[in-house]
Amino acid sequence: MTSVKQPATMVNAFDPARLGDLDAETRGMIERRMRLLGPAYRLFYEQPLRVERGSGPFLYDQNGVEYLDAYNNVASVGHANPRVAAAIAGQAARLATHTRYVQEPILRYAESILPSFGGRLAEDGHIMFTCTGSEANDLALRIAQHRTGRDGIIITSEAYHGNSQLTAGCSPSLGRRAPLGPWVRQVPTPDSYRLPRETMVPWFVEQVARQIDDLERHGNGIAAFICDSIFSSDGIYDDPVGLLAPVADLVRSRGGVFIADEVQAGFGRTGTAFWGYRRHGVDPDMVTMGKPMGNGFPVAAVAVRPDIIAGFGCDMRYFNTFGGNAVAIAAAQATLDVLRDDALSENAERVGNHIRAGFARLRHRFPVIGDIRGAGLYVGVEMVTDPASRQPDGALAARIVNGLRDRHILISATGFHANTLKIRPPLVFTTENADRLLDQTEALLDALAG
Amino acid sequence: MTSVKQPATMVNAFDPARLGDLDAETRGMIERRMRLLGPAYRLFYEQPLRVERGSGPFLYDQNGVEYLDAYNNVASVGHANPRVAAAIAGQAARLATHTRYVQEPILRYAESILPSFGGRLAEDGHIMFTCTGSEANDLALRIAQHRTGRDGIIITSEAYHGNSQLTAGCSPSLGRRAPLGPWVRQVPTPDSYRLPRETMVPWFVEQVARQIDDLERHGNGIAAFICDSIFSSDGIYDDPVGLLAPVADLVRSRGGVFIADEVQAGFGRTGTAFWGYRRHGVDPDMVTMGKPMGNGFPVAAVAVRPDIIAGFGCDMRYFNTFGGNAVAIAAAQATLDVLRDDALSENAERVGNHIRAGFARLRHRFPVIGDIRGAGLYVGVEMVTDPASRQPDGALAARIVNGLRDRHILISATGFHANTLKIRPPLVFTTENADRLLDQTEALLDALAG
Repeated sequence: MTSVKQPATMVNAFDPARLGDLDAETRGMIERRMRLLGPAYRLFYEQPLRVERGSGPFLYDQNGVEYLDAYNNVASVGHANPRVAAAIAGQAARLATHTRYVQEPILRYAESILPSFGGRLAEDGHIMFTCTGSEANDLALRIAQHRTGRDGIIITSEAYHGNSQLTAGCSPSLGRRAPLGPWVRQVPTPDSYRLPRETMVPWFVEQVARQIDDLERHGNGIAAFICDSIFSSDGIYDDPVGLLAPVADLVRSRGGVFIADEVQAGFGRTGTAFWGYRRHGVDPDMVTMGKPMGNGFPVAAVAVRPDIIAGFGCDMRYFNTFGGNAVAIAAAQATLDVLRDDALSENAERVGNHIRAGFARLRHRFPVIGDIRGAGLYVGVEMVTDPASRQPDGALAARIVNGLRDRHILISATGFHANTLKIRPPLVFTTENADRLLDQTEALLDALAG
Repeated sequence: MTSVKQPATMVNAFDPARLGDLDAETRGMIERRMRLLGPAYRLFYEQPLRVERGSGPFLYDQNGVEYLDAYNNVASVGHANPRVAAAIAGQAARLATHTRYVQEPILRYAESILPSFGGRLAEDGHIMFTCTGSEANDLALRIAQHRTGRDGIIITSEAYHGNSQLTAGCSPSLGRRAPLGPWVRQVPTPDSYRLPRETMVPWFVEQVARQIDDLERHGNGIAAFICDSIFSSDGIYDDPVGLLAPVADLVRSRGGVFIADEVQAGFGRTGTAFWGYRRHGVDPDMVTMGKPMGNGFPVAAVAVRPDIIAGFGCDMRYFNTFGGNAVAIAAAQATLDVLRDDALSENAERVGNHIRAGFARLRHRFPVIGDIRGAGLYVGVEMVTDPASRQPDGALAARIVNGLRDRHILISATGFHANTLKIRPPLVFTTENADRLLDQTEALLDALAG
């Protein structure tokens, strides 16, 4: 199998070698950007997009041209949501200080979100605030290592867990030149398209067991298994549900903790279970969350069981200057209120199913659509050269991503071969928005086939 | 010398064992907070403060009682600054998305801040955006390790550089139970109160050289020397200027990079040099910044020379979902504009000198004021049992911090012995505010002496 994803590059990244293909104004801005921001920044699409305004599921460029945003999973309650914007504006004009003073709103937010976690976290869990999902995962892993006195971390083969040294070391999807941590071990992606469904659960548990053995053989064993329950960067896998509960049991029986990384799957994204791990019926030791938590305001968190954090809290206070500050909490509360008042996890489930049903119809006409996966408004559509060989077709996925961009619809691709279309619009996406996405995809596939 | 700072505790932290001393309402809120947020959170003061509103240099509690804030270094342009709040409100209502689309304001901000760094960073440096100072330091250290192919990091003995695993491992001020990284080495605080001034520079350079030797003896040598040029958590040391330039030369000659951690000292805090390292005449390889950058909005950054980031940028893209998003940039631009339009670094220098002069007058009456240090509005006042022995008096510092809090003035303490009063108000602090601080301190010292 060939891969279109090179070691140091990124799925759907603009290639600076093609600057000459762009119009003069865009080229000038990108050259200026490279000079000012340096070489570690990437842009999306063969023709990078300039954005100036957003509203609901739409982005607008400098000329006011509308793009249907089927990709941004941060603006869950819609770009520039007025309730969230008003909450931020009101609090920014009042106070923006930190958690070493007593403040009421952070307590109210904690009380409103903790019950949603279910299981033991709903009973007596704590919530700790950071600014980013990376910080949340970094903190959760530090807590796990302190709790267990061990170093080992098990992740999936194409995981992404963040950009700090610790979490980048747990993020093979950053490319082969980005070093993994010395005590990080990978288990294969639970590829429901290629592996037999009936043996998937025992097979996956066995993979985890082998890596625990390896961590015990080489070092001091497992501190944590951390997993995004929708397997976003592995290629988006929603099935079989029930995959993770026996993994959590195994991990605990070997002395580790189970961390549900809900930065991508959480807050209703994957449907009415609200949290991705709850689809799988697992009761995690810690849950991390971020991206849509403040609809774009930098706020993230770790939910943790009291027995897991007790020792860390005694030995090693945690303080994050902006984490859970007054404006962050106002943004998070407004976002959560809108999610609930507008029943957006239900909308995600309904519209997500509509999108998957639409692609299932398209598959009859286009057999290069190999598999359709996902839960709620996290949709994966795997492109293959032909359905018999199931050979990944990353080049075709790239043509679709860029072809849709030219048709003013924004998606991306994911997975090791970058051949799975990644569709994860704001949760305010309607069936009409979905039909526009489906119609344009069909027209594009016709044009590409023609 | 005895220390009032216990291994797992924090300077000026509320002791939960004293919950019973508080009024019923405050006690109830704090109990609720401990249940919801868990044991890793700390509160300031023997009598924790509840805050609901801020304005300029003032905070207000739930009853509208005014507190003069001489401590918060985030709200540099004043609590709830109207220009910053309006910029945040306007942009939050328009768009809050990320750096993988082309956007003009982030380029404009980069152009407006890069010249301020001076030296080679002003010539052709890049700026990369994160959400927190911890993330900025974590990224700078990752870049340094990638650039040098080495692991070693040298810090000062009571440094604080962040809360991620990597940066907490570079933060001995978190307490003795918080592990330092295996390749982290400490140099002693350049204690200008106790060490001879004339030999300070060669002595400090020698300390760094010894630790480089140690890193080469045990491992692969030095990746980075990272230093806060006002030595905030070491106890606030401003002199001798010129201390750091020979350190930077040494570090580079041994293959490492010099990182100026300006999260505390930057953005005019230490006076008209605008950046703390510029007071010292050093030309760093990287500069990290955060806290006041968005006046409370979570935004931070790393400025880096092109030769330092080139390899990292090729091998390992960096993306931070919220880092440098449209609202973060709007907040940062407005903050920078106010700092400049209102000449707040000049104000910091003038009012800071006024405060130091006031404490110098108080020292004639109260010889327990052992030393007065700082630059701009970063003021350290070291309390000792008597000026002859220079024995640190952390207990007295704690009484002053809490006594001033009862007089509605907010400061804290710092240093290994927690005996140095830490005074770092918003940069809008006026001489009238300073006189109120000085008058109340004098009255308190009289009362304590009485």
